[in-house]
Amino acid sequence: MAREPRQERSRTTRRRLIDATVECLAELGWTGTTVGVVAERAGVSRGAAQHHFPTREDLVVATVEFLTEEQITEVRRRAETLPQGRGRAEPVARMLLNLYTGAKFRAALHLWVAASTDDALRAVLAPLEAKVGRESHRVAVDLLGADESRPGVRETVQATLDLARGLGLADLLSDDSKRRQRLVRQWAKVLEPIVGEGGDRPVP
Amino acid sequence: MAREPRQERSRTTRRRLIDATVECLAELGWTGTTVGVVAERAGVSRGAAQHHFPTREDLVVATVEFLTEEQITEVRRRAETLPQGRGRAEPVARMLLNLYTGAKFRAALHLWVAASTDDALRAVLAPLEAKVGRESHRVAVDLLGADESRPGVRETVQATLDLARGLGLADLLSDDSKRRQRLVRQWAKVLEPIVGEGGDRPVP
Repeated sequence: MAREPRQERSRTTRRRLIDATVECLAELGWTGTTVGVVAERAGVSRGAAQHHFPTREDLVVATVEFLTEEQITEVRRRAETLPQGRGRAEPVARMLLNLYTGAKFRAALHLWVAASTDDALRAVLAPLEAKVGRESHRVAVDLLGADESRPGVRETVQATLDLARGLGLADLLSDDSKRRQRLVRQWAKVLEPIVGEGGDRPVP
Repeated sequence: MAREPRQERSRTTRRRLIDATVECLAELGWTGTTVGVVAERAGVSRGAAQHHFPTREDLVVATVEFLTEEQITEVRRRAETLPQGRGRAEPVARMLLNLYTGAKFRAALHLWVAASTDDALRAVLAPLEAKVGRESHRVAVDLLGADESRPGVRETVQATLDLARGLGLADLLSDDSKRRQRLVRQWAKVLEPIVGEGGDRPVP
């Protein structure tokens, strides 16, 4: 009888710890993000936090996976409302080039930079980076309805995501949104030739 | 009589402190980069270091300015050997998209990310970012011989540098050079139409 609520409670605790991790990373960086600090911010006992996440590396893996899944779900949901055909290029460009702005990217960036000088963190993040990279690429291809078998298409999709990450960096210390919106309009022209090439494949 | 050598000694000390700052940032991050640690690594007394750079923010401003100047000088020097005309697009793409890989970008990245949660650092870096951004843009325009009065050219040059920074991020935890070289070939096609448009303006 008590099973369902307990599972649910456990899920809620996990989620609160992950949310607190994002906040801690974005505000305090990796150095300030310990299981103890995160537990306190989440209003969870240290013991309960360590039951879910024995080390802060475990916390980080769960957080990056959660952020990625959440972002992909959100992007796919919003993509349902976009027009089909060439008119799709600009809204898709806008959606993709705005991907890496905000507190969640800042949290991830703290991790990436810390991992470049922290072997334990790098050991868990490097494989995760490859996985997240593949998933983001898949979503971008689907959103564009692009045909990757055509020469240059794969590289154009990759460049879109690398550009988006560069724009995330440019937005770190000051609001870069106006300049970014001008780039979106230009980028739509780069994407136009590959939008909807994928033919009958349903765009999610 | 002693004036010249003293000036030179002072310049050498300054340069050693800056080099040590780059090393410290790339290896230890912003948290580990104090004037004391940098002085020790540079083999300079703490007092001498503080004479040149009273705070670590001063050290950082000098370091970012130095790195930028050095990089711009190097890029302009190497650009002298590049072919003119359309054949210039790929080597310029390669040069620009490789700009932000290596220890110097990693050092800068530590600063940028730290500044996002450190108001004192942000106060010195934000104006510097704008200046460095303008200078890098100027160099890219010159290298391409691009005509910014034509629609979309300015945005394409900006996208090139933002893409380069995104590629720097992708190179942080693992060697991304093979994928980057495929992107360079594709990017050359985006740059081709704007290369040499600037007409008779001498390409440096």
